[in-house]
Amino acid sequence: MSLLVGDIGELVTNDPELGVLTDAAVVVEGDRIAWVGAMRDAPAADERLDAGGAAVIPGFVDSHAHLVFAGDRAGEFAARMNGEPYTGGGIRTTVAATRAANDDTLRAGARRLVGEARRQGTTTIEIKSGYGLSVEDEARCLRIARELSDETTFLGAHVVPAEFAGDPDGYVRLVCGQMLAAAAPYAKWIDVFCDRGAFDGDQAREILTAGAAAGLIPRLHANQLGPGPGVRLAVELGAASADHCTHLSDADVDALAGSPTVATLLPGAEFSTRSPYPDARRLLDAGVTVALATDCNPGSSYTSSMAFCLALAVREMRMTPAEALWAATAGGARALRRDDIGVLRPGARADLAVLDAPSYLHLAYRPGVPLVTTVLHNGVPQ
Amino acid sequence: MSLLVGDIGELVTNDPELGVLTDAAVVVEGDRIAWVGAMRDAPAADERLDAGGAAVIPGFVDSHAHLVFAGDRAGEFAARMNGEPYTGGGIRTTVAATRAANDDTLRAGARRLVGEARRQGTTTIEIKSGYGLSVEDEARCLRIARELSDETTFLGAHVVPAEFAGDPDGYVRLVCGQMLAAAAPYAKWIDVFCDRGAFDGDQAREILTAGAAAGLIPRLHANQLGPGPGVRLAVELGAASADHCTHLSDADVDALAGSPTVATLLPGAEFSTRSPYPDARRLLDAGVTVALATDCNPGSSYTSSMAFCLALAVREMRMTPAEALWAATAGGARALRRDDIGVLRPGARADLAVLDAPSYLHLAYRPGVPLVTTVLHNGVPQ
Ligand SMILES: [Zn+2]
Ligand SMILES: [Zn+2]
Repeated sequence: MSLLVGDIGELVTNDPELGVLTDAAVVVEGDRIAWVGAMRDAPAADERLDAGGAAVIPGFVDSHAHLVFAGDRAGEFAARMNGEPYTGGGIRTTVAATRAANDDTLRAGARRLVGEARRQGTTTIEIKSGYGLSVEDEARCLRIARELSDETTFLGAHVVPAEFAGDPDGYVRLVCGQMLAAAAPYAKWIDVFCDRGAFDGDQAREILTAGAAAGLIPRLHANQLGPGPGVRLAVELGAASADHCTHLSDADVDALAGSPTVATLLPGAEFSTRSPYPDARRLLDAGVTVALATDCNPGSSYTSSMAFCLALAVREMRMTPAEALWAATAGGARALRRDDIGVLRPGARADLAVLDAPSYLHLAYRPGVPLVTTVLHNGVPQ
Repeated sequence: MSLLVGDIGELVTNDPELGVLTDAAVVVEGDRIAWVGAMRDAPAADERLDAGGAAVIPGFVDSHAHLVFAGDRAGEFAARMNGEPYTGGGIRTTVAATRAANDDTLRAGARRLVGEARRQGTTTIEIKSGYGLSVEDEARCLRIARELSDETTFLGAHVVPAEFAGDPDGYVRLVCGQMLAAAAPYAKWIDVFCDRGAFDGDQAREILTAGAAAGLIPRLHANQLGPGPGVRLAVELGAASADHCTHLSDADVDALAGSPTVATLLPGAEFSTRSPYPDARRLLDAGVTVALATDCNPGSSYTSSMAFCLALAVREMRMTPAEALWAATAGGARALRRDDIGVLRPGARADLAVLDAPSYLHLAYRPGVPLVTTVLHNGVPQ
């Protein structure tokens, strides 16, 4: 079964660079792209989807999200925004709610967010654990995540749970031992929140090394809340991505620039915590590969909208609209070490979004407006 | 025909203040609210719409939008964001495209934006002229606007068009004379862009006074680009609203605080022009009535999303989520001198939005996410 997506006014292929074609068409065979080119040269196909002159982009690749949890923290958010003293439990609030929830509740919540993201054009979404923080609950959260995504990440080292408050090293041993063993069958990646108030460089190194030995690939929450060893550690260990990168030294930027490690920026977190944004231009100008992702989570960034993050990247981080779109698609694919997504070329997955707009520029030009009208995921209209 | 909107987890009535009820219901008769109260006390109705525990809010009242125009200015936006020198024509680019467009094109464009806003929960939207700038084109744009909204505004004094570049006073005479006469049958309001590069205080006074004599009610674009006489003039002339209010002196704030004139803040414009935001807290703390609106237009703020503006108001202008929601609903109604919208109480218009969220807090807590699932406009599910 082949499908022609025709009458595309502007097609972003990301091949090479942004790879913009006008008056273009895409042919899909099954779950893959079979052909990309000028509308007038398009081969025949069994079915046809007319874009009516609109812009078409590769589906967004959201390479950083925390979707398996129970409850929300709207009250904590409002208190923070109102400048009121915050007396809640932060991540631990969500851990308690998640542990208390049954599988169906967790599954329904995660599925709802994946669907919400999909409708907004996200065709790949990474899902981390990190609200279980016990052997059983981390494995359970990853099992549910794996039902929804191939890109699953074991984040047992999100924070030290309350019951290990007096014994953080004991918790690190648990993460590296029994918890990793229980989580590994459901995870592709291993991640650590390496920042003040969470895990230090030595702990992060121990956990990521243990994860790598168990066949998981490292990625890292690094340098969000302050300067620290996270980014350099990510590069040293060959992590696919260092995420947040808000507080960087020159040595951090140099390390990233000389490595294949992607810097994944998460401006939704700075938006929702009223924090200064990372310096995307410094990274781009140094030659670092930059990705954009949502960090979707109930505490610090409860958005599932890649378009919103892209608009923030342009407004607040001075990325060009072209750089931001690339980072939200091909950049995310790099951060997940995938070459079959974030790009529209023959052989790639048929993941794309049709916009109610003549150009991808409208994603930043029309902030907050839900512009995605049709999504193809694995060749299937959603 | 009556309709029960039942099982509302959280109902914002704006009566009085935010007027939040939990486990609530609303009964609609025809195009009006007939009853509001606790779910367990709800009277019977012919039909039923179940909110499933979600939050329901009054429909957004967008009291400031420019929707009748042709073309877009995505290239100008991208150049501005990229820091490139801007060589385009600004508003005059849109004026040329609008004059060249036929009625059907203008109507289709405006209708598309009204529909887009409606799906995002906006049940009242003010529409200004201002891209015609000739007697015929201003009347034509307002005729089309009036097909889509009762809240139409004659903004012949948007900028001085190119053909009057050497004779701005001649243009003011045209606006006050023949153009006003042609526009007045289709307009409720008269507006002037009183700012540097547009019209000064004397010109604005002359135009608003002529408009008032023709039965139109004044409102004013004031103090967006710099300090000036706009806000005080708005108060002096009894304008319903002074819009933008980005650069205010103490005298401006005092004038607003001692008057019924609403300060309408348009943070989408500051977002899309990378400008400093107005100081909402200073206005609120002085007792000024504040409204939020989109300023939807193809140059400086091409968003139709009131939720996006509300999230910006919380993040950037330190309005509380409650203040921001009130300003985006009841505040907009005040700015349009309406007491039948922006409020859910018996007798008011049945304009409301059901959210895919348990609380209105999610409008700011989940930025960029399209949370509006169902809209009732004049009692009719959209
Ligand atoms: Zn994260
Ligand atoms: Zn305006």
